[in-house]
Amino acid sequence: MASDEFDIIRRYFQRSELAFAAPGVALGIGDDCALLRVGPGQELVMSMDLLQEGVHFLPDSDPYLLGQRVLLVNLSDLAAMGAQPVCFTLALSLPNADPQWLERFSAGLGVVASAHACPLVGGDTTACHPDHRVLTVCIQVHGSAPQGAALLRNGAQEGDMIYVTGTLGDAAAGLMLLQGRARDERATPAQRQALIAAFHLPESRVRAALRLRQLASAAIDISDGLASDLGHIARASGLGAVVNVDALPLSEAFRALIPPQDHLALALGGGDDYELCFTVPSDHTEMLEQQMREAGTPVACIGHIAAGSGVRWQRDGETLDLNVRGYNHFPASGTAASSSQERR
Amino acid sequence: MASDEFDIIRRYFQRSELAFAAPGVALGIGDDCALLRVGPGQELVMSMDLLQEGVHFLPDSDPYLLGQRVLLVNLSDLAAMGAQPVCFTLALSLPNADPQWLERFSAGLGVVASAHACPLVGGDTTACHPDHRVLTVCIQVHGSAPQGAALLRNGAQEGDMIYVTGTLGDAAAGLMLLQGRARDERATPAQRQALIAAFHLPESRVRAALRLRQLASAAIDISDGLASDLGHIARASGLGAVVNVDALPLSEAFRALIPPQDHLALALGGGDDYELCFTVPSDHTEMLEQQMREAGTPVACIGHIAAGSGVRWQRDGETLDLNVRGYNHFPASGTAASSSQERR
Repeated sequence: MASDEFDIIRRYFQRSELAFAAPGVALGIGDDCALLRVGPGQELVMSMDLLQEGVHFLPDSDPYLLGQRVLLVNLSDLAAMGAQPVCFTLALSLPNADPQWLERFSAGLGVVASAHACPLVGGDTTACHPDHRVLTVCIQVHGSAPQGAALLRNGAQEGDMIYVTGTLGDAAAGLMLLQGRARDERATPAQRQALIAAFHLPESRVRAALRLRQLASAAIDISDGLASDLGHIARASGLGAVVNVDALPLSEAFRALIPPQDHLALALGGGDDYELCFTVPSDHTEMLEQQMREAGTPVACIGHIAAGSGVRWQRDGETLDLNVRGYNHFPASGTAASSSQERR
Repeated sequence: MASDEFDIIRRYFQRSELAFAAPGVALGIGDDCALLRVGPGQELVMSMDLLQEGVHFLPDSDPYLLGQRVLLVNLSDLAAMGAQPVCFTLALSLPNADPQWLERFSAGLGVVASAHACPLVGGDTTACHPDHRVLTVCIQVHGSAPQGAALLRNGAQEGDMIYVTGTLGDAAAGLMLLQGRARDERATPAQRQALIAAFHLPESRVRAALRLRQLASAAIDISDGLASDLGHIARASGLGAVVNVDALPLSEAFRALIPPQDHLALALGGGDDYELCFTVPSDHTEMLEQQMREAGTPVACIGHIAAGSGVRWQRDGETLDLNVRGYNHFPASGTAASSSQERR
């Protein structure tokens, strides 16, 4: 049994594949603060997420998968800005100091940290409320980008083409499988496994994102569902978006499991995709598609930016009357999110 | 009733006294990430704390005081490094979206943020677990210091003098009053009020800390109690510390409320002081004391760094056999901290 927080930190979080030395990190774990050096002409890019068991991830999640997922989900925010990962900080509120859990969780973190050269540099480890034993994980990721090069939400221009990476709705379908809310027999075992994997381990779009810096006019990561997140780009840019729903990239596994009438609700409002949605001036699309091929990142052009506001959904040029909304943590009743709907 | 997280952020956290423009902040709230510019020759200094109701602060704390306290406590980590505050991020896991609570909490944050020119630049706002309605606050503060100038724990040298700012044990005594664990009648109403204020609103040592950069060899902030935190300096520096317990700065209010036999336990192990403990080469002490007078910061010289390891407590040159330990979140039994012992 780990005896105190310093012991926990030393044993599980100062491990070499997690808290390794990295350029830009002048001082990591072990003092009151961590120290970063940001190169000349670079900006520090940072994003924070708080994730709680039963709200943002399933209770009794496999700690190895969870460790990977919480970091991947945060790196997705850096990707959305076109930033190069530098390091991350981690605060844990733990129900108990279970060595096996800590070992597997920190190993999962380490896999993603190593793969992205993004070490753990500090944070906080505490025991949670004794009468409310719920795991809470707060992560802040830090990246760098040349001054002025970070991809913002507000740069879309009329006529820009709208792209997404990967496929949409897979993670939401995977979550339905995990929660027993989907009719399993519609998909093959391999398809079901792929969908569940999409929920646990979102693809990292960090490498692709670095190539977007010169090409995209605006970007966001799709965490609450395309409808909500593309809406943010449109609103921030003071324009509207037109999406051809038949162009939405849906995986074979998704099409197998999910009945056609539910495709749009899940692909547009399911959330947890952690794919990128970005806009590209129309004279850059050829270059963009070539760059993404070179990066090995599938992309689909799903529509364009137009005058007006909000997102308009079209099929065969006809506007559809869809009422898709992203996930809302605070419904009008004032009650919190239902725990049966795990979602960020 | 605030209707969603974006509405909550807009209404309570993008207020002008909290999310104001500041040098170094290129982009604040509203995109996937915040962007910082760190000046040439500067390092970014950062620290993260997770605070949970019933563990790190009292249930039903006044949100205005709580907002101030959670930021002050984190700024104390920047002070311990001699860093100039730049900005902070905030993640909230909320039991409900109570407008009055949000208004008061964010106003409290704003008071401290404005006073330190340290705006809120981003974070995360979510609803907590519906069956475990406990408020969780995670803050990361960001500061800057010239490269190589940050005060670390490991710089103490044999013969350096050990100082602390302010007085010790007041916050622990204030917490006892708040929890009804102290015999009120021993202190005057004004004294009781002062002790309670020491718990709610620790003095900011940020300005004093900037003057320590050139003078101190090591520093830490006292969050878990002097015994534990001075122990960190000794261990990190590979040396021992000798403290004259009669030199420990204790306030009149503390002396009035706390029986003499309990003074040391509370002053050395009570925690929540958020004063600085630092070491100064003996030929710099005069300059140090002058600088602290100019900053209006009371300091006391309590001992010196010596060969060996650990902290030795002395009175009249005799070593005392004290068994004082800092707060441990994970006692050997594996159970979490008792909720009756609010502490970080």
